[in-house]
Amino acid sequence: MHLPFITATANAALSMQLDAAIDSKTKPPGSLGMLEVLARQLGLIQQTTSVALTEPVILVFAGDHGVAAEGVSAYPQSVTWQMVENFLAQGAAINVFARQNGCALVVVDAGVNHAFGPRDSLVDRKIAYGTQNFANQAAMTTAQCAQALADGIALVDELQGNVVGFGEMGIANTTAGAALMHKLTGIPVSDCVGAGTGVSAEGVRHKQHVIEAAVSHHAGVDDPLAILATFGGFEIAMMAGAMLRAAERRMVLLIDGFIVTSALLVAARLQPAILDYCVFAHCSGEHGHKRMLDTLAARPLLQLDMRLGEGTACALALPLLQAAAGFLREMATFGSAQVAEKLD
Amino acid sequence: MHLPFITATANAALSMQLDAAIDSKTKPPGSLGMLEVLARQLGLIQQTTSVALTEPVILVFAGDHGVAAEGVSAYPQSVTWQMVENFLAQGAAINVFARQNGCALVVVDAGVNHAFGPRDSLVDRKIAYGTQNFANQAAMTTAQCAQALADGIALVDELQGNVVGFGEMGIANTTAGAALMHKLTGIPVSDCVGAGTGVSAEGVRHKQHVIEAAVSHHAGVDDPLAILATFGGFEIAMMAGAMLRAAERRMVLLIDGFIVTSALLVAARLQPAILDYCVFAHCSGEHGHKRMLDTLAARPLLQLDMRLGEGTACALALPLLQAAAGFLREMATFGSAQVAEKLD
Repeated sequence: MHLPFITATANAALSMQLDAAIDSKTKPPGSLGMLEVLARQLGLIQQTTSVALTEPVILVFAGDHGVAAEGVSAYPQSVTWQMVENFLAQGAAINVFARQNGCALVVVDAGVNHAFGPRDSLVDRKIAYGTQNFANQAAMTTAQCAQALADGIALVDELQGNVVGFGEMGIANTTAGAALMHKLTGIPVSDCVGAGTGVSAEGVRHKQHVIEAAVSHHAGVDDPLAILATFGGFEIAMMAGAMLRAAERRMVLLIDGFIVTSALLVAARLQPAILDYCVFAHCSGEHGHKRMLDTLAARPLLQLDMRLGEGTACALALPLLQAAAGFLREMATFGSAQVAEKLD
Repeated sequence: MHLPFITATANAALSMQLDAAIDSKTKPPGSLGMLEVLARQLGLIQQTTSVALTEPVILVFAGDHGVAAEGVSAYPQSVTWQMVENFLAQGAAINVFARQNGCALVVVDAGVNHAFGPRDSLVDRKIAYGTQNFANQAAMTTAQCAQALADGIALVDELQGNVVGFGEMGIANTTAGAALMHKLTGIPVSDCVGAGTGVSAEGVRHKQHVIEAAVSHHAGVDDPLAILATFGGFEIAMMAGAMLRAAERRMVLLIDGFIVTSALLVAARLQPAILDYCVFAHCSGEHGHKRMLDTLAARPLLQLDMRLGEGTACALALPLLQAAAGFLREMATFGSAQVAEKLD
């Protein structure tokens, strides 16, 4: 299959213009901290010193996981489709936060184990009724994985705006995410697994053993796409495709928590320049997320001990993104406001 | 003078109701992290499980400081009034952030060394044209300090909403804030001073010596109000009064950075229960702020290395406050959404 090609954003001349624009604003140099770093990144992505964020949207991908049969989650698999219904009924946390912060929401059935039937506000990209159990066999076929990536690409082709956040729902998908993390970073499984939706310490050890056994069972799987097909989920693969296309289109990518970042790990292996386009919404409370972010040299905007997924941190980080764009575009300069500059 | 009296928010029965309401929402228990802690706090402040935030406003208090004559700032004193003009012209960072997040802004001349004349959008509560230089004498008289507190109280009496953020502008006011911090916490001056608007390492040492000499000069000043009058600023004293009245009125107080927190140190010495009403917007990049927050057992929402003041972090934290209120008010419950609960 043909995957998107992503260009790095580095541009020395524009960087200097952005630095000058930021330092001309009526504030002590550097005093907006990470918002200044973010403004520079947005400028490089949009190739301008006059950044504008338009029609932000969060894509929430839902999928079920065969590995749920191993008893790795604190909730039954039916919660995946029930939460999709909750999204459609505007009752979930992501609905509240997206609404409050003026962000559109698109809910995608990437492979939920439930027949929703035709539904106005649900995008049907169902690959299958859940993946296979990777404890025994690959989660998906190569063809299914390619289809999921292609569907993610196609979904992003339809977007009008220039900011896209990523969210997910899928019972047992922290188990898939931890397996991807281990395979793609080499970090021991014990440092990749966490409590997910809230399993006990014993449950975390069980997750670890399930993943270790599966990794052993699938020894020799080393290509990023093969790793994705073997251990991933339909929602994770579709996100990876969507991320790749969004960066190719020079959109700003808002990265949520553990599972979304695991999809990015795959995408970044295929196209490392994708990281230039990523804004990391938060460091989640899920155990492995901090180390996962560290491997990407990512500095997240929020640290609120959240571990809900759904794209909730993307919705909460959006106002910070808008603040970074806003100060660059709207603040007066020392010259325009006739404010005295720093003493020598 | 008569100072506000603040009641602690502790309420065991309501706490249990809030816990039950939060845990009934369609999310794993605890998965919204600090937003859940915040929702509980908001519920206790508003004495309800149905929190609503109305007409948020940020009060920006501006004042000049005699101690600027000691060369403690990287900017000339004229920047105080020039930045007030910038606020009125909508060109400062706080204007951009408040506008973006739907927050009203009230700019108060608490004691700027400049004659603004009558101006539509500037609240004139000028105590004097700047404080005295505390290196030589008390920054203000007891009567001026009492007037500033009373003016802060009166300003809050006029507010219609239930959320108030605090911001400030005043060249040399990190020097005043560091002196207050030292006197009120006992932390060595060297751990209280920072670069402020961006003085050099040598400049920071100079600030330290100025403060140490002044503390020695004013030995024996130990009463919180006497400390405020001796080392504070008009904007700091007016903020302290406004904070006390806001908490008495059971409003939510959004606390900005180093200087705003130094005003809160004074208020909390007078009325410790004020802390129940405070939401700490961020940990600033100003050196002493983290320890200042630690003395209050405060856990800030944002950590973005910002050090601009003006109430900028309050404006940026407001969407998180609204998210906490929003999920409590608007999210579906496991029962209402028919989502299966956690497995045993």
